Amino acid sequence: MRIGLLGFGTVGKGVYELTAPRNDIQVVKVLCRRELTLPDAQVTHDFNDILNDDTIDTVVEVIGGLHPAWEYVKAAIEAGKNVVTANKALVAHYYDELLPLANAKGVSVRCTASVGGGIGWLSELERVRRCETVSRVGGIMNGTCNYILDSMTRLDLEYADVLRNAQVLGYAEADPSTDVDGIDTWHKLIVSANIAFGISLDIDAIPAAGISKITRDDVAMFRRKGYTCKLMSAAQVAEGFYSAYVQPTLVENGALEAAVPMNYNLITLQGNTSGRQSFFGQGAGRYPTAYNVVQDCVDILAGRGFYCPYGVKVAVLNDKRLRYYVRGAKDAWLQSQKQESWGEAIVTKPVRVDEMHAWLKKNPDAFIAALPEKN
Amino acid sequence: MRIGLLGFGTVGKGVYELTAPRNDIQVVKVLCRRELTLPDAQVTHDFNDILNDDTIDTVVEVIGGLHPAWEYVKAAIEAGKNVVTANKALVAHYYDELLPLANAKGVSVRCTASVGGGIGWLSELERVRRCETVSRVGGIMNGTCNYILDSMTRLDLEYADVLRNAQVLGYAEADPSTDVDGIDTWHKLIVSANIAFGISLDIDAIPAAGISKITRDDVAMFRRKGYTCKLMSAAQVAEGFYSAYVQPTLVENGALEAAVPMNYNLITLQGNTSGRQSFFGQGAGRYPTAYNVVQDCVDILAGRGFYCPYGVKVAVLNDKRLRYYVRGAKDAWLQSQKQESWGEAIVTKPVRVDEMHAWLKKNPDAFIAALPEKN
Repeated sequence: MRIGLLGFGTVGKGVYELTAPRNDIQVVKVLCRRELTLPDAQVTHDFNDILNDDTIDTVVEVIGGLHPAWEYVKAAIEAGKNVVTANKALVAHYYDELLPLANAKGVSVRCTASVGGGIGWLSELERVRRCETVSRVGGIMNGTCNYILDSMTRLDLEYADVLRNAQVLGYAEADPSTDVDGIDTWHKLIVSANIAFGISLDIDAIPAAGISKITRDDVAMFRRKGYTCKLMSAAQVAEGFYSAYVQPTLVENGALEAAVPMNYNLITLQGNTSGRQSFFGQGAGRYPTAYNVVQDCVDILAGRGFYCPYGVKVAVLNDKRLRYYVRGAKDAWLQSQKQESWGEAIVTKPVRVDEMHAWLKKNPDAFIAALPEKN
Repeated sequence: MRIGLLGFGTVGKGVYELTAPRNDIQVVKVLCRRELTLPDAQVTHDFNDILNDDTIDTVVEVIGGLHPAWEYVKAAIEAGKNVVTANKALVAHYYDELLPLANAKGVSVRCTASVGGGIGWLSELERVRRCETVSRVGGIMNGTCNYILDSMTRLDLEYADVLRNAQVLGYAEADPSTDVDGIDTWHKLIVSANIAFGISLDIDAIPAAGISKITRDDVAMFRRKGYTCKLMSAAQVAEGFYSAYVQPTLVENGALEAAVPMNYNLITLQGNTSGRQSFFGQGAGRYPTAYNVVQDCVDILAGRGFYCPYGVKVAVLNDKRLRYYVRGAKDAWLQSQKQESWGEAIVTKPVRVDEMHAWLKKNPDAFIAALPEKN
């Protein structure tokens, strides 16, 4: 396999290093904005040097973001090249174009590193689907948020202080909004659910609530009540209806999710015969992410393309009712949903997920967290 | 694939049910001691009916135990049939005969259900090994022991009461010794380590300590000290030296292992690029186990045989030093290793693992539990 590598940041450099000792997979050209000389690959500033190189059979895209990543990936597929990408935003947003296009062109597309970093999560979903039906996927999919929430919980610190610390340590970006607003998790949930259920979710109907408004006092209250707060994703199918959402969620101390430390991920599926399976590991980082990029290259060499066939577009109906902790805004509707007070916050009666998120959109300074479903 | 199914107990019945709706995999004959009529398969009391049936290409062995399971498996391979087995004892004990024989006969052997039940643990090890080196495997591999220890911890009960309860609920056998003495975990560790490291461990040098001597007072002491007790396996390779052992182990409350409830398993690997990965799920039960048997059949249909080539036989050296909680016996050697007292029990200074297990062999009424490595 001769690779054109798009991007030479954290993950790109890792892919270059991990493939260097291999005989079956070689990075031959690297698209990179910086001036750079590499011992085993030609560096170019022009994507066309890769696109028009007929000796390159596979493009590895680790630039991130939607543009120009999507234009590059699309052009590569149209030129008959396989694509491996770690770009969850690209796969989530262009799912309906990416899969039919790859199918039409007879090339392979894989994106295992896009969800769960170093965990073989999407490839395991692919294996699971050979033999059983998946009814639920979700979990802790963003290491930055887990690092922040875990540090606030263990060290009793304010959000801003922990975020600053996470930025210094490299666990959070200078602009952390994609992570802390739940967008990264939202992308990962969409990709996971599409593969798990063999469909294409209507992404506009999937809400995401983030963690940026959480305070030390919120965390202290959760501790007193026996809960730990995690940013969780959830997608389910029941009787042909699909639900999907991302939100801060309280888990009982002692639950597996509550024990996920630092920047680790824990992603869960529910199979109809294997039962609950959860996968714990590094959701990001140079070598874990590059590792799954290389795994995808090995799979493509073995003739394995995308994890599942392109499925029909389906609606999302978040009519499940959950109880929510809500702090930071009050209005008549919220008061009408109140079941109890937790300090200055309230805990609602069971409220429809879509209603709660619609309310949050109008009250963006509020913080919400769902209580465990059994309560 | 036309299957001869050996055994129609819990797992065998599950395999029959899960394959019934499939077109690619069919159970055509079932070896079973009972009188039985099945709609889609012929039932026989004579293994030769399966062995001599040339239309049967694959034998699924779910009898368990070493004999006659091994004789059947061996004869099937010699007759050119593929073998799928859920039998950890068989794979652990006959590893050095099984793999070379299958290799010589050009047939496929798989055993994913033998470790981790419904978790794709061994198949994930196979995938991991394509791209990286594994330095450590182990974890909670026995659902019966986890159920007992978890119940003792959560409900503050005595061992005997919990065991009786587990037997009533079907989580423990009438004779629980294979589980509670650590033998089942020992088998699973051997199979996991052999595949993870691509070698064959000297099984006689791998000690196993069990949980049958643990008391309510031990558990209460662990709780006071901030620990939870789990039966853990561990195998490591460092600088070409292999260690492997099974023992009750104290994990800090808040650690992922401490949060493993009921009869679940949590199995961990350390990869040199992916980092730590842990896999949580049902380690036993009809459908989880049968599910991975069927997965193995699908892999064999796709041309995938055993997870790794047969590797060289290697020695085991358990010279690592750990601190141990020891209760129930005292002698001069133990007194000389004492670092502190925990009630009537002692906690040792760091002691060689092999020395501690040798002492336990001479003091079989004692209970030992290793403290976490960082302490």
